[in-house]
Amino acid sequence: MVKRVFNFNPGPATLPLEVLEEAAKATVEFNGLGMSILEISHRSKDFEKVLNDCVADVKELLGLPDGYSVCFMGGGASTQFAMVPMNFLPAGGSADYINTGEWSSKAIKEAKLFGTVNVTASSEDKKFSYLPDPKAVPVTPGAAYVHITSNNTIYGTEFFAFPDTGATPLVCDMSSDIMSWKFDASKFALIYAGAQKNIGPAGVTMVIVRQDFLAKANDKIPTMLKYKTQADNNSLYNTPPAGAIFIVGLVMKWMKKNGGLAAMEAKNKAKADLLYAAIDGGAPFYRGTVEQGARSRMNIPFRLPSEELEEKFIKEAKAADLVGLKGHRSVGGCRASIYNAFPIEGVQALADFMKEFAKKNG
Amino acid sequence: MVKRVFNFNPGPATLPLEVLEEAAKATVEFNGLGMSILEISHRSKDFEKVLNDCVADVKELLGLPDGYSVCFMGGGASTQFAMVPMNFLPAGGSADYINTGEWSSKAIKEAKLFGTVNVTASSEDKKFSYLPDPKAVPVTPGAAYVHITSNNTIYGTEFFAFPDTGATPLVCDMSSDIMSWKFDASKFALIYAGAQKNIGPAGVTMVIVRQDFLAKANDKIPTMLKYKTQADNNSLYNTPPAGAIFIVGLVMKWMKKNGGLAAMEAKNKAKADLLYAAIDGGAPFYRGTVEQGARSRMNIPFRLPSEELEEKFIKEAKAADLVGLKGHRSVGGCRASIYNAFPIEGVQALADFMKEFAKKNG
Repeated sequence: MVKRVFNFNPGPATLPLEVLEEAAKATVEFNGLGMSILEISHRSKDFEKVLNDCVADVKELLGLPDGYSVCFMGGGASTQFAMVPMNFLPAGGSADYINTGEWSSKAIKEAKLFGTVNVTASSEDKKFSYLPDPKAVPVTPGAAYVHITSNNTIYGTEFFAFPDTGATPLVCDMSSDIMSWKFDASKFALIYAGAQKNIGPAGVTMVIVRQDFLAKANDKIPTMLKYKTQADNNSLYNTPPAGAIFIVGLVMKWMKKNGGLAAMEAKNKAKADLLYAAIDGGAPFYRGTVEQGARSRMNIPFRLPSEELEEKFIKEAKAADLVGLKGHRSVGGCRASIYNAFPIEGVQALADFMKEFAKKNG
Repeated sequence: MVKRVFNFNPGPATLPLEVLEEAAKATVEFNGLGMSILEISHRSKDFEKVLNDCVADVKELLGLPDGYSVCFMGGGASTQFAMVPMNFLPAGGSADYINTGEWSSKAIKEAKLFGTVNVTASSEDKKFSYLPDPKAVPVTPGAAYVHITSNNTIYGTEFFAFPDTGATPLVCDMSSDIMSWKFDASKFALIYAGAQKNIGPAGVTMVIVRQDFLAKANDKIPTMLKYKTQADNNSLYNTPPAGAIFIVGLVMKWMKKNGGLAAMEAKNKAKADLLYAAIDGGAPFYRGTVEQGARSRMNIPFRLPSEELEEKFIKEAKAADLVGLKGHRSVGGCRASIYNAFPIEGVQALADFMKEFAKKNG
């Protein structure tokens, strides 16, 4: 029996145990080839099948229409912050950014290296504790694209509706909530997501890009930083992060087996409802930090009456095998990250622990 | 008992079985934490130890003097082709490149996006079948750096001496022979290497950079593409390819346990000598494609009398569990890649097979 704790880490995060066990097996020997998945050629038929199955499963799970490419690359979402404007913000041009937290702010900083950034909406005035109404965000005439961050890991806010940007391409950083609910992917010109929260391990970033948007990309940039290179070569222009892609593929199969995005959404909603009920029900000892309408299902921050109690809470929770509950170093407090693979039993265990802790320390 | 073939793939390539087995174990549960190595936080003490041990082992194995940073990043060596000039080729400046094959040529192509490239030596005139004398390569006055590719995977040539560039920084792509022999790393201002040949799995690139060189880097480039970001943050500016770094760390420990670079060199020399003897001894049926003084110990290309015989050879070798012997698609023929973890027994098996095959088909 494998020892397992309830892992509330914000990413890298919990993966399904059956995925880990299959990955472990393939790390020693894959497909009867007498080689590890880490040792086979990325140009072999066996790896191509891994990659193509993964791409097909992503398309199926998202219900992606024709005309999109699904790519896998290294560098994390932080590299995407630069690749998006490098590819799509023409010299002298501008792009719209919606600023809802640290990751949006970093994306804005990188975009400013390449052109003008119009921050068309922001929740910075209240420490990112709410979300601007996506339907009320104006689109700047001539903007090359509109950039939005769907879920804000640090502040715990999440969009469940997106701006209608008309003919202006909509670009989304979905690193921390991709595939956690059923959304209309066809509204987006480009979606990027570091894998290490909902869809795999660290070391690979998924990029979904509409081919007509790709056609507008800047061609005078380094080969590896062109989305077109990755799309045209099915992520095989150079050696891709093969092991990480393999595990993303296993997670896709696990999702399909478990009911796809609709089932993920129902489960994630139930988990989040349970935890928010524990926070709200435990008030004033526990206090959510996010406005009601903006609450994330993925990352749930909460505070206790003092930093001393928060420290004690995190320490005692860890001793009870509830780990990773410390808030981001930039905001403090507590945070529970409960992505797709996080079991509802773990949320129940946390809710029970919270009740008990409040009784003893309240 | 795990099925194992002799894997002559050029990369991803053979890894030590004990490394794979330890990686598999950690993929399910690591350090008694109740989590996989893929699930722990990259900011946890446990991962920091993995990373810091790996960096320390790299420094120890290479005998690196003070003043160097060792970083790990995604994107492969192909991304380094652009990062080097982006960081170090100032606007209006020039850099020297030694062109010894496809990877050098690609590095040159990327550098041209940023400034003037002086190709100060090239072996293109004879299809890259030899190497220019490194001691005779001129250094262009004012060049920002000199770039060299130490081992040419496709053509099978390898430098065992490097140009003396004086005060001009020497930059080296060592993707396919790093840590395969004992060289003087202190001669280099920057070394980069995709891990997937001698030091780990695909998905992570090691960069060794001298801090005084770093101080000269261009600051007006994307955060993730600055070497300084990676060096200043110990590769933890964002989430690194944690699983791949973990395996590089295991490979470093395996190298140390097995005698370090001196022992790797002796073993690699013995393997290469054995295989070149089989080729030369089997002439004219077998024919090496590289000039004597330029022969690589890592990638050993050879031809048979016809393409039909080559195809038959590769097919029958595979049936005998000698896999991955097909030459690169750009040059054809056969190629045996025998990096650090490739066992001498496999080279002996190939030599025996070659003898037998020549007898039957010669």
